[in-house]
Amino acid sequence: MRVTLIKTTIVTESLLADKIVALIQRHGSTGHTLTKVEGQGSRGVRASDWEGRNVKIETLVAEETANAILDELNEKYFEDYAVIAWLSEVTVLRGEKFLG
Amino acid sequence: MRVTLIKTTIVTESLLADKIVALIQRHGSTGHTLTKVEGQGSRGVRASDWEGRNVKIETLVAEETANAILDELNEKYFEDYAVIAWLSEVTVLRGEKFLG
Amino acid sequence: MRVTLIKTTIVTESLLADKIVALIQRHGSTGHTLTKVEGQGSRGVRASDWEGRNVKIETLVAEETANAILDELNEKYFEDYAVIAWLSEVTVLRGEKFLG
Repeated sequence: MRVTLIKTTIVTESLLADKIVALIQRHGSTGHTLTKVEGQGSRGVRASDWEGRNVKIETLVAEETANAILDELNEKYFEDYAVIAWLSEVTVLRGEKFLG
Repeated sequence: MRVTLIKTTIVTESLLADKIVALIQRHGSTGHTLTKVEGQGSRGVRASDWEGRNVKIETLVAEETANAILDELNEKYFEDYAVIAWLSEVTVLRGEKFLG
Repeated sequence: MRVTLIKTTIVTESLLADKIVALIQRHGSTGHTLTKVEGQGSRGVRASDWEGRNVKIETLVAEETANAILDELNEKYFEDYAVIAWLSEVTVLRGEKFLG
C-alpha cells in the first residue's frame, strides 16, 4: 500500500514552467504540483533572473525517472536558465499509480 | 534539542482542506502549514479533479501519528477524492512540542 | 554532478522574513525560495501568532551551515517568535554552487 518514490523538485523561472512540465511528463511523470514562490539565486551569473516570481514544480516518480529528468534538465537548461533541481526519498500512500 | 519526526504531506482539492485539517488534528497534529498549489493528477480516473486550485497540507508528527493519518486518509478519501499523501523523515529543531 | 545537501526549511511569521533571510545569508546560504503559507501552530503559548499569513523559507546548504543556522534561530528567535525549522537530506543537481 506504500511505495518508496523519489520526490523530484524543480525551481525555475515562471516562463519555463510549461516546458518543464512537458519534460517531466515525457519522462513518465503522471502528476505534479506547481507552487508560486519567490526566489533569490546563488551569487553568480544569473542571480538577477531569480528576482520576482518563480515556480516550484514537484512530482513523485520512480528513481530511474527522476534520474532521466535530471539528466535532461542538466543538458537543456542548466547552462542558460535559472533552474535548481533536487531529489528526496519519500514514502507514498498507494504510490503504485505514480510508477507510470 | 532536535527530534526526528515524520513530515506528512497531503495534496488535495481545496474543498477537502478543512476536513483533512480536522483529521490530522484528531490524530494529534499540533501544527500545520497550508499552501495553495496547482496540480495535475495521475492519468486515470480523476485527473479532472486536479485542474485548478488545490492545497498542500504539511504537518510534523511522530511516526505512529503519521501512519494513523495515512490509514484514515486511505479508508475515507482515496476511493472517492483526489488525494495524494506521502511521508518523509526530517530533523526538527525543538521538535518535542510536536509529539503531542 | 550531484551533491548531497541539507534542505533547511523555516516557517515563520511574515514580519520576520527579511531578518531570517539575512540570517541564512550571513551563514553562507547562496539561494533560497520563499513561499506564502497559512499556518496554525502547536497548541500552546503562541498559537495565535500562527493565524494568517506566514512564510516558508527553504535553502540548500552544507550540513555545517544548516547546523549553524538552526543554532542561531534557536538562540535568537525560538523564545519570542513563532518559528519552526527542520532539516532534510536531498540530492542536488550541480549542487556544488550551494556550498558557498
